[in-house]
Amino acid sequence: MSTFKQEPHKLLLIPGPIEVTDEVLYANAYPPVAHTSADFIPIFGDSIRLTRELLYSSDAQIFLIAGSGTLGWDQVSSNLIEPGEEVLVLNSGYFGDSFSDCLKTYGAKVDEIRADFGAAVSKSDLEKALLAKKYKAVAFTHVDTSTGVLSDAKMVGETVKAISPDSLVILDGVCSVASEEIRMDDWSIDAVISASQKGLGAPPGLSIVAVSQAALKVSATRKTPVTSYYASWKRWLPIMNAYESGKPMYFATPPVNLIRAYHTSLKQITRAAPSLADRFKLHKEASQRVKDAVAELGLKQVPTDPYYAANGMSAVYLPDGLGVADLVPRLAQRDVVITGGLHKDYKDKYFRIGHMGVTAVNPERGDLDKLIAALKDSVREAIASKKLQSRTENKRTTQVRPRPYLRTTSARL
Amino acid sequence: MSTFKQEPHKLLLIPGPIEVTDEVLYANAYPPVAHTSADFIPIFGDSIRLTRELLYSSDAQIFLIAGSGTLGWDQVSSNLIEPGEEVLVLNSGYFGDSFSDCLKTYGAKVDEIRADFGAAVSKSDLEKALLAKKYKAVAFTHVDTSTGVLSDAKMVGETVKAISPDSLVILDGVCSVASEEIRMDDWSIDAVISASQKGLGAPPGLSIVAVSQAALKVSATRKTPVTSYYASWKRWLPIMNAYESGKPMYFATPPVNLIRAYHTSLKQITRAAPSLADRFKLHKEASQRVKDAVAELGLKQVPTDPYYAANGMSAVYLPDGLGVADLVPRLAQRDVVITGGLHKDYKDKYFRIGHMGVTAVNPERGDLDKLIAALKDSVREAIASKKLQSRTENKRTTQVRPRPYLRTTSARL
Repeated sequence: MSTFKQEPHKLLLIPGPIEVTDEVLYANAYPPVAHTSADFIPIFGDSIRLTRELLYSSDAQIFLIAGSGTLGWDQVSSNLIEPGEEVLVLNSGYFGDSFSDCLKTYGAKVDEIRADFGAAVSKSDLEKALLAKKYKAVAFTHVDTSTGVLSDAKMVGETVKAISPDSLVILDGVCSVASEEIRMDDWSIDAVISASQKGLGAPPGLSIVAVSQAALKVSATRKTPVTSYYASWKRWLPIMNAYESGKPMYFATPPVNLIRAYHTSLKQITRAAPSLADRFKLHKEASQRVKDAVAELGLKQVPTDPYYAANGMSAVYLPDGLGVADLVPRLAQRDVVITGGLHKDYKDKYFRIGHMGVTAVNPERGDLDKLIAALKDSVREAIASKKLQSRTENKRTTQVRPRPYLRTTSARL
Repeated sequence: MSTFKQEPHKLLLIPGPIEVTDEVLYANAYPPVAHTSADFIPIFGDSIRLTRELLYSSDAQIFLIAGSGTLGWDQVSSNLIEPGEEVLVLNSGYFGDSFSDCLKTYGAKVDEIRADFGAAVSKSDLEKALLAKKYKAVAFTHVDTSTGVLSDAKMVGETVKAISPDSLVILDGVCSVASEEIRMDDWSIDAVISASQKGLGAPPGLSIVAVSQAALKVSATRKTPVTSYYASWKRWLPIMNAYESGKPMYFATPPVNLIRAYHTSLKQITRAAPSLADRFKLHKEASQRVKDAVAELGLKQVPTDPYYAANGMSAVYLPDGLGVADLVPRLAQRDVVITGGLHKDYKDKYFRIGHMGVTAVNPERGDLDKLIAALKDSVREAIASKKLQSRTENKRTTQVRPRPYLRTTSARL
């Protein structure tokens, strides 16, 4: 057990999947067990309990189902919303668009408040919308992986419940659970959607959803039948309850290896040092370190205000005139994997870095030192190479290369 | 790499999850990579190609999606069937019931031909139904894990296409792919649904679906929109095509570790000795060995005829008067994990053994020797203990314990 060491590899610093511990990977390589076995049942049950604890909830219902994070959208859309019901989506990037698509697929009528690129929806815009129309639910992306924009979950929960107490608050926490604080009960969040491969520190493939008892009741008393089979909570609820109470029950074969890996990570997150509160603080500190380094290089963040900046990832504009292909491969040569943009209008204008989980919490690994050094060298090298290329071209053609217009970029070659 | 050995564990001989190789588990413990990385793209692409090859198809579209096998039902039900369309389900056990439920959830009108417990639907019953009504699709469970009943896939495909050429043939191969021969093109099968954890020899958590080009066209030209988001082929098709052609594309984060593990297993199945044809032969031989041993113990199989008996698993009636709890724990004490019944009416009357993958194909492991020895000892011990208990009770109460009536049991205490 303790002798297992993962293969040497490039440092994975994208906003998920992320670096995971040897213990988590070793759990993923544990010989498959029967999903009904006495060995597996408490692992499943504990995973449910620890997920609840991580979200500071006393009684949220947890669903752990084989699937990508995306499946969580299907779960909330198909179980909580009936065809024709109105949903308000607070859109802060690519994932807001997709969440809306999913809601519409299940018959929801969707209104969107679209934040400017790099911002989240403001309290005043939310209030205005809530006063203008009654919504069955308000959905938002806590951290939009495409922009690194953090929404204020506490503000959203409190604002919705103040103006429209019956509206359900749905938080997409795929890129925030375990890297950003989420107090589900205190902040009146009715559903949290997540996945195993980001802040939760396990390989991808597990859809993780938490639902308040109030929302579960809304689902149980709906008038129309749930139109999904695999995503139906009615089918999964007895399974989750059985495993939590120490008994096996069958609907579909649970991903036993991945649940063991997830459980190992959850124990490291909730039962080992640092404490959960310190873990969130360490993510903030790590994030600040990356953002300071980026500023030192003269680069500007995509989030237009530090208030909107996620703590588990950074989205950063490239120096003017450089594209993703000028920078990302240079970091890869230095064994650091980051990635380009994921917003249709701007994807070649910025890059994204993940700094979640062990990368943020275990400084002795040196992940951030390595990242920052590689980033500095790569940015300088890319700029120098571009200048050289530009000069050569100017000589050859005596023309100035057009520079792409980019409203918010401050760094110049 | 080559030094990795999985943890010592009880021999897992249930009908999935199954024993897997060290190489597969090590792949599952490979450090997570970016789903867009040059390292991962060919692994995903090859997994698609090798799955197609395994099903003897030249052009089936493969979908590899994070999820349990159950998600495959949602995929075919939501993409191929429009609300109100007629589907014929050939029901040979528990999984036939569930498949019908799933189809109905997506609006299908389902007729079922229910085979007797232990049998599959006969050719004449299928013909009769096809002549009586036109069906959009005919769905059947190739091997029903609940009963160990094997349906004749070639017969079903040929019979449907002979009488009703436009009807789609949907095969649930969760418990048959890689342990039973499936010739998708030759047998006119339009969709094969499977999962990673049975004959395919990887941990659970990957939904594997193959769709004929004809069926894909039916889905693409449907009149009503697909009512699932996560299971929608329209959303996944560009992703699968991109990865197969060597480019990454995003809809949901693929389970990179599990796909690596699945790929490792696929290579062992299709690229290493024995050949695919020999692999199916070895499964038949292993199955026969288990079934002979069971017969020697005086026990009867659930399948009422060898024609209906799966080659990757066995379902066997307990000796009369014994329940699952009398036998399964005794095998566990001997480090062999088998399981009880899974059919609501009979679940305490029979037990199930999986003999798929390495257990069937690599006799040097000695899995079957260990199984058969443990089975013999456990059955004898259970019977002896029951007799002793019965005698003691008789002495105490001078009453004879009632014996549960079981129509098809031959073995007696």
